[in-house]
Amino acid sequence: MSELPMTRADCEALDTADPLRSFRDRFDLPDGVIYLDGNSLGALPKATAPRLAEMVGGEWGGELIRGWLSRGWMAAPRAVGAKIARLVGAEADEVLVADTTAINLFKLLAAAIELNPGRTTVLSDTGNFPTDLYMVQGLGTLLGDRCRLRVVEPEAVEAAIDDDTAIVMLTEIDYRTGRRHDMARGTRAAHAKGALTIWDLAHSAGAIPVDLNRPLDLDGGRLDGPGADFAVGCGYKYLNGGPGAPAFLYVARRWQDKVRPALSGWLGHAEPFAFDLDYRPAPGIDRMICSTPSVLAVAALDCGVELMAEADAAARHAKSRALGDLFVGLVERDCAAHGFTLASPRNSTQRGSQVSFAHPQGYSIMQALIARGVIGDFRAPDLIRFGFAPLYNGHADVWDAVATLRAVMETAAWDRPEWRTRAAVT
Amino acid sequence: MSELPMTRADCEALDTADPLRSFRDRFDLPDGVIYLDGNSLGALPKATAPRLAEMVGGEWGGELIRGWLSRGWMAAPRAVGAKIARLVGAEADEVLVADTTAINLFKLLAAAIELNPGRTTVLSDTGNFPTDLYMVQGLGTLLGDRCRLRVVEPEAVEAAIDDDTAIVMLTEIDYRTGRRHDMARGTRAAHAKGALTIWDLAHSAGAIPVDLNRPLDLDGGRLDGPGADFAVGCGYKYLNGGPGAPAFLYVARRWQDKVRPALSGWLGHAEPFAFDLDYRPAPGIDRMICSTPSVLAVAALDCGVELMAEADAAARHAKSRALGDLFVGLVERDCAAHGFTLASPRNSTQRGSQVSFAHPQGYSIMQALIARGVIGDFRAPDLIRFGFAPLYNGHADVWDAVATLRAVMETAAWDRPEWRTRAAVT
Repeated sequence: MSELPMTRADCEALDTADPLRSFRDRFDLPDGVIYLDGNSLGALPKATAPRLAEMVGGEWGGELIRGWLSRGWMAAPRAVGAKIARLVGAEADEVLVADTTAINLFKLLAAAIELNPGRTTVLSDTGNFPTDLYMVQGLGTLLGDRCRLRVVEPEAVEAAIDDDTAIVMLTEIDYRTGRRHDMARGTRAAHAKGALTIWDLAHSAGAIPVDLNRPLDLDGGRLDGPGADFAVGCGYKYLNGGPGAPAFLYVARRWQDKVRPALSGWLGHAEPFAFDLDYRPAPGIDRMICSTPSVLAVAALDCGVELMAEADAAARHAKSRALGDLFVGLVERDCAAHGFTLASPRNSTQRGSQVSFAHPQGYSIMQALIARGVIGDFRAPDLIRFGFAPLYNGHADVWDAVATLRAVMETAAWDRPEWRTRAAVT
Repeated sequence: MSELPMTRADCEALDTADPLRSFRDRFDLPDGVIYLDGNSLGALPKATAPRLAEMVGGEWGGELIRGWLSRGWMAAPRAVGAKIARLVGAEADEVLVADTTAINLFKLLAAAIELNPGRTTVLSDTGNFPTDLYMVQGLGTLLGDRCRLRVVEPEAVEAAIDDDTAIVMLTEIDYRTGRRHDMARGTRAAHAKGALTIWDLAHSAGAIPVDLNRPLDLDGGRLDGPGADFAVGCGYKYLNGGPGAPAFLYVARRWQDKVRPALSGWLGHAEPFAFDLDYRPAPGIDRMICSTPSVLAVAALDCGVELMAEADAAARHAKSRALGDLFVGLVERDCAAHGFTLASPRNSTQRGSQVSFAHPQGYSIMQALIARGVIGDFRAPDLIRFGFAPLYNGHADVWDAVATLRAVMETAAWDRPEWRTRAAVT
């Protein structure tokens, strides 16, 4: 990165020159808060409240049951999915909004393992978000010896792919450290050994460049050959869809008519309104929807996705990297005496839009920061984690956050009895 | 039923005397509409819009990530579940709001079949909503010969329970005809043969008296012995939770620490924030939640549930039966010449809060009714279906609906080319 700013005014000058600066005014952020937790729950777009008011009063209240067709509720999971597709390098008909990340993952795991008969291993790594591993374990309770979870260290994944590997299931960005998997390399390695890939984009979508059809390597190069097979992602982090927003799933076109839904609900039936007694899957990705989506929740997600889609992707990523680099530089310069160890990759091409530092008093330090309006979060055992949302965070925010961190450390403000017991929330 | 009203004024008098009359003003209903489709999508409570506005602006926007604890988001699925529990005769810790009806059914099917080892049959009937059958078929793709769906006629269920029946899975109220299963009798018969029960309350919760712990028979008697084992239900019909509202599930206390979740997501982990690599189920019903719920959607559901819980259950059921009886009586008297055949049980204790008539031109007739502001719906092959929501429908609504039906028939208003092709929505 370029030279560290010496003053807050330097940061303000960088914000003034920021091509994404105007997006900050499109969010409702509370006064007195520097919000560096958009990687856990994204901020509130100003468009969301009026959209939900119209959705409730005008659409539900005014149209009642007719809204399924007259207001496009039935089509919304595909329509919002198509917008997300543009953010993750997929075709419009390859992405669907539905359910939760974990449940979508279950759908894809069950389908993918069947597409790779004779192989039983789902390979993942210790850096994966635990729910992903749990969903494989849950599927394993049903499939017995036809499904086995194998978990290795992130660096050992490639070498661990073998003739029994049905699926390589990786979360692109480690939720704790922000360490980024090389999607091009991982996909190539899996395919070379006959394995399918499921990528979890929870901390990627809206945060870093993603191209599922032509996966990127860490240097911006592209995979030559078939892209990602399957993916899931989260609506409530960088997509700003609201707490517990619906998730999305991706199925590459080449697999869409081959996947058999285990969660075979009526909305994924070829003819939902025929009310047949036997399930026949709908053509294409529609078979993966299962059941009636929350129309209110999908509408809220749409507002966040729209806003993200408006911002230039290259500018987003450049700013995200710059904010992360600035944070690392300032903490290491201004808090050098206080025992923080960088837990994220130093090279910003190798991480997502977040930075974590390890500190033995991490939990208490984060509580002190939050009490002073700097909101990040804590991840066991000792990580303080900060997310940088390029649409609403600025360089001066980073400056102020580090200044607050320094003040917390210099005054030992973290050392309070009520902060000695851990109670964290994702 | 008592004698049929001779005039609209008679109906107005009944409405004036209705102890539930004031609830109608708690809903936003569009002008010029008689809404008889609350069995498909419930109407909008007036409380919902301001609650969602506060939820979005005040809670999400103001609290951001802190809202999970500070505003009780994390506890909401249990809190709203406890309110629903009172509507369905369950203990507060036996009901959880989560996901969709179909997905909750999958969770319970997977858990229940494992609790009954050596048995492979899930027994259901042709009157079940197809998605319930499809979910068994989907589970069967994973379990192979350990899970087999058997579908018989509704009257044949009891005799079909045998030594291989692991689960008797029934929807209490037939979505097409409103025919009501005898929950006491069905539960007793299943238990007598060693089978477990899963009841789908989609068209029951909020519509008829339900007592999962001490199941009711059709005459209001109660089962002596263990109650229902498992149940699911829908939030967007009589509970007025909004389009695609979250669903709920019930697990009897005696099974809660025995069920193994196949959808084993992180929020159902014993220590979600420990981020262990291995799944360990939470105690009690919490293990069935899987993943992060849509907080906005749960808040909207809460508004509908609150309103329903305020109304006296006996008064609700009495009015629901009276409206249905009135509708049947008026159609048979005033539309006698027009070829309608009652498809619902004539005895109101044997049906849910809906009435269907068969007619060869059913689809076109329903379109003509909707064009005149009388909203019911159509179910293949020939049913027109009308739901009666005792909180917001009145006797005069029923009178007006039948008068409109009669006018449609006498003028052949249904006979328009654009209504010859069917396109219906649940």
